Amino acid sequence: MKLIGIIGGGSCSEEIAEMSETVGEELARRGMALICGGRGGVMEAACRGAKRIGGLTIGILPGTDPGEANPYVDIPIATGLGQARNLVLVTAAAALIAIDGEYGTLSELGFALKLGRRVVGLATWEVPGVIMAKDPKEAVELALRGLDN
Amino acid sequence: MKLIGIIGGGSCSEEIAEMSETVGEELARRGMALICGGRGGVMEAACRGAKRIGGLTIGILPGTDPGEANPYVDIPIATGLGQARNLVLVTAAAALIAIDGEYGTLSELGFALKLGRRVVGLATWEVPGVIMAKDPKEAVELALRGLDN
Amino acid sequence: MKLIGIIGGGSCSEEIAEMSETVGEELARRGMALICGGRGGVMEAACRGAKRIGGLTIGILPGTDPGEANPYVDIPIATGLGQARNLVLVTAAAALIAIDGEYGTLSELGFALKLGRRVVGLATWEVPGVIMAKDPKEAVELALRGLDN
Amino acid sequence: MKLIGIIGGGSCSEEIAEMSETVGEELARRGMALICGGRGGVMEAACRGAKRIGGLTIGILPGTDPGEANPYVDIPIATGLGQARNLVLVTAAAALIAIDGEYGTLSELGFALKLGRRVVGLATWEVPGVIMAKDPKEAVELALRGLDN
Repeated sequence: MKLIGIIGGGSCSEEIAEMSETVGEELARRGMALICGGRGGVMEAACRGAKRIGGLTIGILPGTDPGEANPYVDIPIATGLGQARNLVLVTAAAALIAIDGEYGTLSELGFALKLGRRVVGLATWEVPGVIMAKDPKEAVELALRGLDN
Repeated sequence: MKLIGIIGGGSCSEEIAEMSETVGEELARRGMALICGGRGGVMEAACRGAKRIGGLTIGILPGTDPGEANPYVDIPIATGLGQARNLVLVTAAAALIAIDGEYGTLSELGFALKLGRRVVGLATWEVPGVIMAKDPKEAVELALRGLDN
Repeated sequence: MKLIGIIGGGSCSEEIAEMSETVGEELARRGMALICGGRGGVMEAACRGAKRIGGLTIGILPGTDPGEANPYVDIPIATGLGQARNLVLVTAAAALIAIDGEYGTLSELGFALKLGRRVVGLATWEVPGVIMAKDPKEAVELALRGLDN
Repeated sequence: MKLIGIIGGGSCSEEIAEMSETVGEELARRGMALICGGRGGVMEAACRGAKRIGGLTIGILPGTDPGEANPYVDIPIATGLGQARNLVLVTAAAALIAIDGEYGTLSELGFALKLGRRVVGLATWEVPGVIMAKDPKEAVELALRGLDN
């Protein structure tokens, strides 16, 4: 099973939420599992999209209580690591899609590039090495292109 | 979905492997997901048992490569955290079963008790607070007894 | 500079606090730096003892605020890792002295033994591999005995 | 004691090493302790500069062996956390100076900004929120400006 990471802010605009939801749907349609930080905003919207298509969603949570996951997370992994949980989800992902986001997303995206993970960006930080996509469908296609089957 | 943690050594005797396998089977039979360190020994045997019954298995790995998981892990989570990954799997579990094991298992079991998780022991360290079981089936029953439905 | 780890509970009796303070003094007298979790109880008492002799004290803190250290910590390292900070202090220590303590101490002590660190115990969990000392002075002598100069 | 973090690559050009060394000197001259990842490149050069002036240097190491620190580290903290050690050093620092660097530095810098730490940049990623300095002396002055006394 391939895990595709979604990174983005814990709160976001309606427009970004719609994009995130579509990314989640497109991933699930292609049989990919979605891994994220398990909380709100971009994470919740992407999980909601994935669940609409019956995809599998994994949330790597900062606290010690699995109940802090958003309602669309199938497998909540409470880590107790605080923000260091972000490194876990980036490391666990075969490829990542960064959507919108602020400094936390920048940090995750930098770490993913350092690890050599493929990172696709959607309306996010433009950093050399991030492959920018123009819409959710293209983002998913670009993210999966690099994976061996 | 409830995650039940299995903790135990990365290598073990045939007898302990059989016990671990039965624990995995019994968990899967009751619809529980199994979370463990994802490597060999007790972990591999328990995952093998769970998969025989079609259960779901999650491996929280020390390195950055999901390929280091044993072949019975459905969802490998490569953390890059080294031994600190043990704290993640303990925190993520609703209850734990400790089987055999050496100092690493003692450390995980102590941490689980500190977090207030229910810990059942099978042929392992006898520490006050650990509920000792006489066989795999009883271990699973005792582990699940404390969970709210 | 050798770092000697002190592990023990965040609260303790007067008697244990006195023992911890003497351990801190004896370490400082021998030119050792003390590393601990940086909070109250055994940790604070040991740091207080070390500072009385002018020793160096390092506190590996669970939160993100260095201000949560006890007043006898010279170098507060705020990790943001929660309880996983315990693994950091154990890993960083050349040898450890466990004093009193509950499940957290058991977990740290197990982890230290797993890493192959020398662990001396004072009124704490009696675990095979832990070298039990009868008083603070002996604890420090036994902890340092294994270190190469 | 205030800890000032230095982030930058594990290898660097001669020119960057000279800048890093001067940053280390300027920090030590102002009585600041330097905290970094404890390895080569920018980290080693900054530590060397600090030690020339008699400053205190702390290295937060990825592995479990304090011997992997560069020779100018006074207090090696072996964490065993791999790359997650970067979050520890960022969290522990009262303010940070980013010098040169690649994706790892970008990740640390993003994380520092997320935590609300003051970040000064020297020949590094230009990210909104990073205060760019034109030379080592200005970098140190800008980093310290925000600290309460």
